[in-house]
Amino acid sequence: MRWCRFDTGGSPRYGLVEGDIIREVAGDPFDGYDITGSVHNLEAVHLLVPVEPRTFYCVGLNYAKHIREAADRNGTVPNLPTQPDVGYRANNALIGHGADIVIPQDAKKVHYEGEVVAVIGKTTRKVSEAEALDHVLGFTIGNDVSERLWQKSDRTLWRAKNSDTFKPMGPWIDTEARLEDMYTTVRVNGEQTIRFKTDEMIFGVARFISVMSQYMTLWPGDVIWMGTDGTSPDLKPGDVVEIDITGIGTLKNQLVAEA
Amino acid sequence: MRWCRFDTGGSPRYGLVEGDIIREVAGDPFDGYDITGSVHNLEAVHLLVPVEPRTFYCVGLNYAKHIREAADRNGTVPNLPTQPDVGYRANNALIGHGADIVIPQDAKKVHYEGEVVAVIGKTTRKVSEAEALDHVLGFTIGNDVSERLWQKSDRTLWRAKNSDTFKPMGPWIDTEARLEDMYTTVRVNGEQTIRFKTDEMIFGVARFISVMSQYMTLWPGDVIWMGTDGTSPDLKPGDVVEIDITGIGTLKNQLVAEA
Repeated sequence: MRWCRFDTGGSPRYGLVEGDIIREVAGDPFDGYDITGSVHNLEAVHLLVPVEPRTFYCVGLNYAKHIREAADRNGTVPNLPTQPDVGYRANNALIGHGADIVIPQDAKKVHYEGEVVAVIGKTTRKVSEAEALDHVLGFTIGNDVSERLWQKSDRTLWRAKNSDTFKPMGPWIDTEARLEDMYTTVRVNGEQTIRFKTDEMIFGVARFISVMSQYMTLWPGDVIWMGTDGTSPDLKPGDVVEIDITGIGTLKNQLVAEA
Repeated sequence: MRWCRFDTGGSPRYGLVEGDIIREVAGDPFDGYDITGSVHNLEAVHLLVPVEPRTFYCVGLNYAKHIREAADRNGTVPNLPTQPDVGYRANNALIGHGADIVIPQDAKKVHYEGEVVAVIGKTTRKVSEAEALDHVLGFTIGNDVSERLWQKSDRTLWRAKNSDTFKPMGPWIDTEARLEDMYTTVRVNGEQTIRFKTDEMIFGVARFISVMSQYMTLWPGDVIWMGTDGTSPDLKPGDVVEIDITGIGTLKNQLVAEA
């Protein structure tokens, strides 16, 4: 099943994507739904982020190559995490598939980060690693857009990671995609810039969910962005970034300069 | 005006606190409301967090004394912020006035932090410092409960600051309280442990809102926790923490051990 959220001029609705059509539902994938008779052409609707999370988790450092390359860039020693400490991103920054990433006027070094995103499907507290994936509704794709100079100069990641439009997520949630089959491929202006095995994480999705749930309740609709591998070229206005993950689809967004 | 949010067994409702009664409203303080004929006894209702923010901002380090005392405790040099870099907390951890703070079984060094909280009232983007406070609906109180050993050992603040129940907020939003008149007083089991002038921040509310809004949209209902001064004694199950801020009221919560 592929759950999308879309806007046809009224309030946001959920729908099921089947090929090039969307079957509109009443309700949502978390609290229950009924399929309505309304069918839309996928190309004709405006896709929104597939969910607005109550809490927006992001793992940050979770692939060894990404951490080593970032350390090389900064002239520091790679600092691989020794335990799964999750971080946060901010809802103000979310945009859907197809929306523009707006580069602030004073941003100088903007990078993409292609990430698989686990979407929590049911209330989760103190689950084992073996049970954890049963609490995931499905997977979507995130682009953890980052301004690298602010990431160095600021005490927190507020504008480096959370400026408006810096968190594209979508195009939809796929409930059948399997982590072990996934490859993440990123293209800039149609040219492949990186391809990595999505599941080769330092700490996997099940481990993170189990450890997090020992201290906190994960709620339906919460999202966990799982980190990225490798590095990005410096991006500029006009560039189009596509992140493709096997079994999910492609998240595509263009960068534009702030007016 | 004092806006509270409460639960009388059905769905959460907003109300206006007048002395010891609540006038129930239809709607909310952000999108508009009508006063209904329903009146409740303040003592009889279950107060909820006055708002569930879309994004939960927290300033962290914003009082010089708190930073110097923390550095002394850790044997490090105080590192005063040189620019207003905002941080984040997580909605899973929010509880209302009167609810219990549950200390996880393996938590060892739990502290309070009494903070004034600015509640955003309208959509805010690129505002000047002079305009910023016009975008604040009012103020409430937050207790930024922290586990100090996890704060040192973990790469992020996830469980140190965001374990379930670690973020009491309330009791209500006061729309007339004035920052310049406020003192924050904390009592543990009825004994005053600290009192400080709330507005003696390194960067004030207006400055933070103006700077943040250059990069991000603040939405109605977003909250900004403004940091705390001084330090806390180590807390234990059974302790009752009251945070009193002039013109707002008192946020009171008891600590209990995890079952």
